[in-house]
Amino acid sequence: MAKLTLSNANKIITDALAKGKELGLKPLTVVVLDAGGATIAMQREDGSSHLRPEIAAGKAFGCIATGVGSRWLNAQAETRPHFLEGLSNVSGGRIVAVPGGVLVKIETGEIIGAVGITGDTSDNDEIAAVAGIEGAGFTPDTGA
Amino acid sequence: MAKLTLSNANKIITDALAKGKELGLKPLTVVVLDAGGATIAMQREDGSSHLRPEIAAGKAFGCIATGVGSRWLNAQAETRPHFLEGLSNVSGGRIVAVPGGVLVKIETGEIIGAVGITGDTSDNDEIAAVAGIEGAGFTPDTGA
Amino acid sequence: MAKLTLSNANKIITDALAKGKELGLKPLTVVVLDAGGATIAMQREDGSSHLRPEIAAGKAFGCIATGVGSRWLNAQAETRPHFLEGLSNVSGGRIVAVPGGVLVKIETGEIIGAVGITGDTSDNDEIAAVAGIEGAGFTPDTGA
Amino acid sequence: MAKLTLSNANKIITDALAKGKELGLKPLTVVVLDAGGATIAMQREDGSSHLRPEIAAGKAFGCIATGVGSRWLNAQAETRPHFLEGLSNVSGGRIVAVPGGVLVKIETGEIIGAVGITGDTSDNDEIAAVAGIEGAGFTPDTGA
Repeated sequence: MAKLTLSNANKIITDALAKGKELGLKPLTVVVLDAGGATIAMQREDGSSHLRPEIAAGKAFGCIATGVGSRWLNAQAETRPHFLEGLSNVSGGRIVAVPGGVLVKIETGEIIGAVGITGDTSDNDEIAAVAGIEGAGFTPDTGA
Repeated sequence: MAKLTLSNANKIITDALAKGKELGLKPLTVVVLDAGGATIAMQREDGSSHLRPEIAAGKAFGCIATGVGSRWLNAQAETRPHFLEGLSNVSGGRIVAVPGGVLVKIETGEIIGAVGITGDTSDNDEIAAVAGIEGAGFTPDTGA
Repeated sequence: MAKLTLSNANKIITDALAKGKELGLKPLTVVVLDAGGATIAMQREDGSSHLRPEIAAGKAFGCIATGVGSRWLNAQAETRPHFLEGLSNVSGGRIVAVPGGVLVKIETGEIIGAVGITGDTSDNDEIAAVAGIEGAGFTPDTGA
Repeated sequence: MAKLTLSNANKIITDALAKGKELGLKPLTVVVLDAGGATIAMQREDGSSHLRPEIAAGKAFGCIATGVGSRWLNAQAETRPHFLEGLSNVSGGRIVAVPGGVLVKIETGEIIGAVGITGDTSDNDEIAAVAGIEGAGFTPDTGA
């Protein structure tokens, strides 16, 4: 089984923030979790607000918790709100079910981590996450 | 009073997982609770994601909490969401109100435990739970 | 990186319970976690009390959280109680800092999971955990 | 008011990790908080365990919470454990009162953030934090 290293995680963050700059997005916060949900690295850009680290982590943790990108959780929340409520509760309130949480996979399909981004629209957050994951040579899974 | 033994619980899990394999379901997580809501046994198949044990337990605990299979809780959530919200709150956030939580009964109708399964669709999770309970010689109650 | 499979976890539990039987220990509860702290399998013997699954999980999670066997946490609790209190708090109250939580390592020294056992004395719980881990072909680390 | 930027925080982390490498310390986790207690950046080295981000954050948050380095909190815990318990409770369980949490000050004495490090002994964690803060051109306050 492959493992996401700190060096990988830093590269993901650098590339995600570069994408945000390229697209003129608002200041972003980027969190990278390992396959067990522990944080590997996090950066919050100047001007990105107080709770952004927890929001970004909540998007990423939802992916690890369920094995699906957070866009799927967002769809579930719209069609089965009580499922999301239960899921959120049994997680100890650690899940933010909107797009911008993206699984990090390797070519075999194995999940080795997740990225969560917040700061701009959820769709734009997701674009930055995908760019970061691809820039580091991994396969993103948004849950679309 | 009849009591679900560890040996019973292991048999339920084995048969539920065999049903999942037979039907080609995704990797499953199976939890068996006793009549007091304490876990007797749990197994998470390789590839079943991080929070699945808590989700499966949440389905099963909803059954024990209310004395009804979780399909009924799912219906309640759709027609009376505020009831589920209150129920969830007074449980300390331990309930996941979607199908796949099934009561284990004996022929007198007495409840001796509950099974919770997650990993595939809620309907398929429930099919596996029913198969496990019947395989161990007990009567399932899905709340349908 | 190696990964603890469900098959490994079931073998660990079977061997740990056999050791308990051999030594005439009280009914045990055994939990096996993966390297990310998610439960892989759990069994509670008939007569092992209501909260034992959470106690066993708390011993095992302390190991994963800190990368050391729970005997070390027990020593810390005696010499630096405020460290254990802080650690417990930031874990969300998920740590039980007494012997009986043992890391599962492979020959390279890499941590691939943890076992937590409760039911008899902490020392005996640990003996059963070590037997289970060795029976499955892995290296136990008790934190001694 | 001066403000710790993401660029400052990344420099602090880089220098703290370099110090750890120079001294042959175990793998470290470094967290940098701003003056309001929000995380700016975090890095966990390969091999640093699962809960280290929360432990490091707990050391740093104790500094922000009280306006003193965590070495002072450690001393308080030894002489007035009930004070630490109350403090920890009103913080919502967010404080780890051992050395390794260090305030980041500017020449006027103004607090602009805090660094928390965990992974080696508390004393060594603190040495790495001091090195990181000084490397970035700020004044460390360990609470000694």
